[in-house]
Order: sequence, then structure tokens, then C-alpha cells
Amino acid sequence: MGTDGGRAGATGAAGSLGVGAPVVGVIGAGQLARMMQPPAVALGVRLRVLAARADDCAAQVIPDVVLGSHDDPDAVVAFARGCDVVTFDHEHVPTAVLERLIEQGVAVHPGADALLHAQDKAVMREQLGALGVPVPRWTRLDAASVDAAMHTAAQFARETGWPFILKAIRGGYDGKGVWRIETPQQLREVVETAHERGVELIAEVLVPFVRELSAQVARSPHGQAVAYPVVETVQRDGVCREVYAPAPGLGADRSAQAQRIALTVARELDVTGMLAVELFQTADGALSVNELAMRPHNSGHWSIDGAVTSQFENHLRAVLDLPLGAPTPHAPVAVMANVLGLDLPDVYPAYLHCMARDPGLKIHMYGKAVKPGRKIGHVTVLGDNLGDCVERATHAAAYLRGEIDE
Amino acid sequence: MGTDGGRAGATGAAGSLGVGAPVVGVIGAGQLARMMQPPAVALGVRLRVLAARADDCAAQVIPDVVLGSHDDPDAVVAFARGCDVVTFDHEHVPTAVLERLIEQGVAVHPGADALLHAQDKAVMREQLGALGVPVPRWTRLDAASVDAAMHTAAQFARETGWPFILKAIRGGYDGKGVWRIETPQQLREVVETAHERGVELIAEVLVPFVRELSAQVARSPHGQAVAYPVVETVQRDGVCREVYAPAPGLGADRSAQAQRIALTVARELDVTGMLAVELFQTADGALSVNELAMRPHNSGHWSIDGAVTSQFENHLRAVLDLPLGAPTPHAPVAVMANVLGLDLPDVYPAYLHCMARDPGLKIHMYGKAVKPGRKIGHVTVLGDNLGDCVERATHAAAYLRGEIDE
Repeated sequence: MGTDGGRAGATGAAGSLGVGAPVVGVIGAGQLARMMQPPAVALGVRLRVLAARADDCAAQVIPDVVLGSHDDPDAVVAFARGCDVVTFDHEHVPTAVLERLIEQGVAVHPGADALLHAQDKAVMREQLGALGVPVPRWTRLDAASVDAAMHTAAQFARETGWPFILKAIRGGYDGKGVWRIETPQQLREVVETAHERGVELIAEVLVPFVRELSAQVARSPHGQAVAYPVVETVQRDGVCREVYAPAPGLGADRSAQAQRIALTVARELDVTGMLAVELFQTADGALSVNELAMRPHNSGHWSIDGAVTSQFENHLRAVLDLPLGAPTPHAPVAVMANVLGLDLPDVYPAYLHCMARDPGLKIHMYGKAVKPGRKIGHVTVLGDNLGDCVERATHAAAYLRGEIDE
Repeated sequence: MGTDGGRAGATGAAGSLGVGAPVVGVIGAGQLARMMQPPAVALGVRLRVLAARADDCAAQVIPDVVLGSHDDPDAVVAFARGCDVVTFDHEHVPTAVLERLIEQGVAVHPGADALLHAQDKAVMREQLGALGVPVPRWTRLDAASVDAAMHTAAQFARETGWPFILKAIRGGYDGKGVWRIETPQQLREVVETAHERGVELIAEVLVPFVRELSAQVARSPHGQAVAYPVVETVQRDGVCREVYAPAPGLGADRSAQAQRIALTVARELDVTGMLAVELFQTADGALSVNELAMRPHNSGHWSIDGAVTSQFENHLRAVLDLPLGAPTPHAPVAVMANVLGLDLPDVYPAYLHCMARDPGLKIHMYGKAVKPGRKIGHVTVLGDNLGDCVERATHAAAYLRGEIDE
């Protein structure tokens, strides 16, 4: 047997890759857990999901489903029994629950210390600043009282200017928990509501970015890492609408800088599994970090159809401490567009139309009931020309939500 | 809504592609049904499998499993209830069972009339001959008695020469049910055993082929068809070991001829879903049909990683009468190698080694216990150079079965 013959990551009962395959437990059963199932099927890895409801996206396609809440320590510990490793569909598992798991000897990837940086925006910014990674200027609002928070915010605004951004330190996603503050009155409203709800805030300068980028890496417990091509993400109303892979016109130096930032963050924070570093780019080309996600991320969905190894496969390989797969793209350009629910009662006719219009279109539906604004699927197209790919992907995404009928 | 807005294929209760997605019932739960699950997850299509055992390959990865036998009409009819369409993992469902399903109003693809040609080698050869599709010279042995069968075979051998081939009309696969007949004594042994077991035989000339090819097409009930690149299949001991896509050095004319044969067979026999036409090529370049398979086929596994739309996705799209996806390859060359079980007690260390050696390797494990000679998985590599791809794929396949240790 060769030098890599040891069983590094899977520590449990998994024997052969026959009926005793390694078991990866996924806390949360949304679309990210769902999209782990195709590579798990190929790799011969078994998934077990902790689902809130029996019809959650991932619970529809994975046989081994445990119903329970991600913030119930007993439920999570019981779920983890028999898993070779536990990972996540989302970042909302409380630190105390993660620590209970680790106490019980469960392999958890990413670990609690790493994950804290994706859960707590203040801790992340402090740590990244200490590592010399560029982050926009920010401050933590004094949470002692509304007046104390108003005082910190007013001082921050005096020094950096209006408008500025407030963000909830924990729990935000898809534009939720982020407020653009134009006036002292808006400031007071957000601060008062946050104080009532026990939500702590940071203030951050409004970065005059010209576009947003995402740099994704996979990193395994033994320290191997691979970097995906840096992509551009197009957001509307705080929600990712399209992803262009690779980021058009991004120079080799900037691309390497973004990948270096992601590799540094992954190594220094000991991230295991997929890491996405969301970046702002300003007119002078400079980059700064907006947010981190320690899991497969919307900005990497293009890789399912567009790369030799998708982010979902590399996430599984990483958390099992298996060697990572090549992130090499299949085509010069990949464009992904999210399908947001609008008011189409039955998506099926639109789905059929889109397949007929474009035989190269890759459609992904998450098994969700359609609700306005909800991400219910995505489409990806590959090609040689960015403009063509954007037209094909955005047409299909708009058609599938019922925005257009031609 | 556009012109293609009707609900053509899915006729059952399927509503949106949310929680009421179309349900495809698959009779049989082997690796082919298993490999339908990844595209079903993406398409938002639900699979239900009829499995002989709870740990069958596909039953490990699909939540909706019904235990039962494919030749029990009541079990099959009960299984089909609530499916929008029923399709197959294998071709062994008796015609009477299929007819019961169709009587009950179940949409079955491929249909019983088409499927008969993949089940009965004599019917297939008669029909293909009538269509003008080239088949090797053959005859049906008289099944009335051993002496009658010997008489027909001897006459066939006198006319066409020794050695020749005997094949069981029904039930053979992977070299089983095929005998190379060198001597009259061998002939008598096979004929006597077949007669005892009630197995009917055909005799066929031994085609002096230089290689074997496979032409795959997908065809939908409304008559749309797409042709995959023609591939070369490398067999040893009657079992497919490697597939080269596209077939090296096959001229455009021969390639078009092979695709035309497959499209003709699909249309004339009213095949729905995937069809594989296995072909012999002789030294003069001429093609003749060896066998048909009306389901996803080993010769198309390369398409999972190597084409825009895999054979498994196009099979689902075809049986649901959805528009078909592009079969366009991602790379100039794809090579697939089957992993046959040998005597490696635990595949995991070899699996880890292969991933470390080749980050571009795509490994597929079927969740089977390892038994000598059994197909337990396959590997695929993409590249620009056939020699490199063959080395990478065959090395990994040999390593995973424990044939080599370096």
C-alpha cells in the first residue's frame, strides 16, 4: 500500500466503501445539505442530516434523516452518534452545542473556534485585522444601553462620514441584519429595535465598492488546501442574483491576492471544509473582506456543473480529511443565476420551456415550496463568452420565477 | 407562458417542483438506479425504487424504497401507484408484468414492446434485419429437442464455419449466457445444459472484430432524440473494463453511421429513455450490431463527469418527456475504467491513495460489498491525451481492486 494508505479522517465504524461507508452528519437540511448528496452518492459516502422538518430540502433526498433542532444539545449529540464526522448546512449552531459534541469525542468540521469567526462579525473583524487581512474600518457599538450605542455610532460617523452601515454581530444572512444608515433618526430606530431584541451591532464604513468578489478555498484537517477561481457575485437587495466564474477582467495579481487572503484566513483560523471569503473591490482595484462563510456557499454553485470537483464534493473530502479534488473549470466561463420564488404557482411548465430553449442549461431545483424572494433553485451555463452566458442564465432564472413569458 | 408550457410527460399528482415534484419509479435498485439519484436531486425529480434488499446500491441513497420482486405483478403494481412514470435499472421484468402495469394506466418507459428487443436476442435480430440494420449472420436453434437443436447448429456451422457463438436468447449479461463453441463436444454440452434448464439458444457467427463500439442515444416519448459521441469499449472475459470517449480514430463517416444506426433503432422500435447499441467493428471498418440495452449503460458512465448532460440525467428527462439535454463533452478525451472487486478487504486506503495521486480523478463507488469480479465502482478522467487518460484511469481502477500497490 502507498504512503497515503492511512485512514486519516474517518475515525468511526466505517469499514469498506461498501455497506460500511463513512458517515458524514450534516446539521441542517437546507439546499446546501441537499447538494452534498450527489457527490456523496458518487464517493460512496453516507450522509445523515439533522432536519427541522421531514420535508426539508435535504430530507427529501437523503434516506438517513434525524428530526431535531440544531440548538438542542441532546438532540445534536444523539444525532452525532455513529457519524464519522459532523459538519454543517448553516452557521447557526450555538458554540455551547459544538463544545458538547467535541467533549463527546465527535470530529466536528469546521471546529467551534473556526466557526465562531463566521458567526460573530466582531470577532471575525478583530482577528482578520490582527492577521493583516484588509477589512473596512469598523467599530463595535457599546451594547450597555441605547444611549451608549448611539454615542459610539455618532462618534464613528463623525470620524468616517454618513451614510454608514450597521450590522448585527450574529445571525444575519442574505441582507437580513444589515442596515444602511442615512440619518440620525434611522440610526436610533435600528439601535432601539436591536437593543429591545438583545441584538449587538457593529458600525462599518460604507465601502464605495464597484463590485463584489468571492474567493473560495477547501482546506482539510491535515492542512491541504485548494483555491477555486475567484468569482464576481452580483447582488440585488442584499441577495446574490448571479455569479460570474471567473470574475471578468480580474488581473492575475488581484486574483492571486484574493486567493492568498482566502488561504491565509483558512490556515490562520484553522478552517476545515469549504471557506468563502466575500470581498469588496473598489475603483482603484483594492480588495477588502466583507464576510466569511465556513460551508459550501452560493458563490460556488457554478462548480457543480462547471468544475472537475465541485465545492460540495471538496467539502465532503475536506471534512473526511481525504485528499482534495482539482477545482479546474470545464469551460472558460460559467454563469450561475439564482431562481428566486415569485408567484408562479407551478414551476413545471416554465422548467420544461427552459429545457427546450437551451439544451445546455443546468437546472437545479431545491424541492422548496415557492415563496416570494425565497431561493428555490439555481441555473448554470458554461460557455466561451460572458455576455452569452449571462443572457442564457438570467433569462432562465427570470422565466422560472415567472418574471417573463417569452 | 411559452409554447412548450404544457405538462407532457408527468401525468400524476406532481404539482410544483417543490414538495410535489414528479416521481419516477425505478424497478431494480442496482448501481444504475443509484446513479440516477444525483441528477434527480438536481432536477428536483423524486425517485422511488423497487429493491430486492434494503441495502441494495440505490436503496442506500434514495429515501423512497419499496421492497419487492420485479417479477411479482402485485408488488410491481403496488409500487407503481403514485409514480408519474416507471422505468428500469435492468431488463429482467417479465413482459406479463409490464402489460399489467400498462393495463393499470401506468406510464412505462421504455414500453413493453420496445423492451422486448433488449430482452429477446432473437426478436431483436429479426427486427434489426428487417430494418436493414447490419447484424452478424445468426440462426435460432430448434428448441424442440437436443437433437433438433444440434441439427440446426451443425447446419449453421457447416455454412458459416467453426468456431461460432451460442447465446441464450434471454437473461444473459456481462459475458454470462454467451459461449464460444470450438468443437462438436462443446456444442453438445452447452445445448444439453440449456435444454435441461429451458434456455433457448441462437447461433451466431464469430465476428472477426478488431474492436467494440457503443452508440448511445436518448429518446423521449414525443420523439426528440440526442446522440452521444460514439465510444470504444474494451472488454476482457466478456466484461467491460474501459471506455474511451470518443472512440479513437473513428472517422466522421463511421461515427455518423453508428449514430444513425442507434437513432434508427430508437425510432423504429419506439425506444424511450436511453438506448445503447453495442457494435462490432471489423478490420475493414464495417459495423454490425452486437446487443442493445434500453437503459443507462456502462458505456455511458463517462458522461457523468464528462458531458454537459449525463446519460442518467437524459434518461430521467426522456422518461418524463422533458426536453433532452446537450450531450456535449467537457474535454477532448474521457476515459472510464470499471473497478472490479478482487480481494481488497477494505477499499478505503486505496481510495485515499488514488485521490492523493490524481486530484482530477473522479471516483464512483456503488456501495457494494467487495466480491471477486463484481463491478463495485468506476473511475473517470478527462484530458487532452488518450494515452495519459488511459494510464490514469487504469492505474486507479487496478489500485482500487488491489492489483497493484505502488
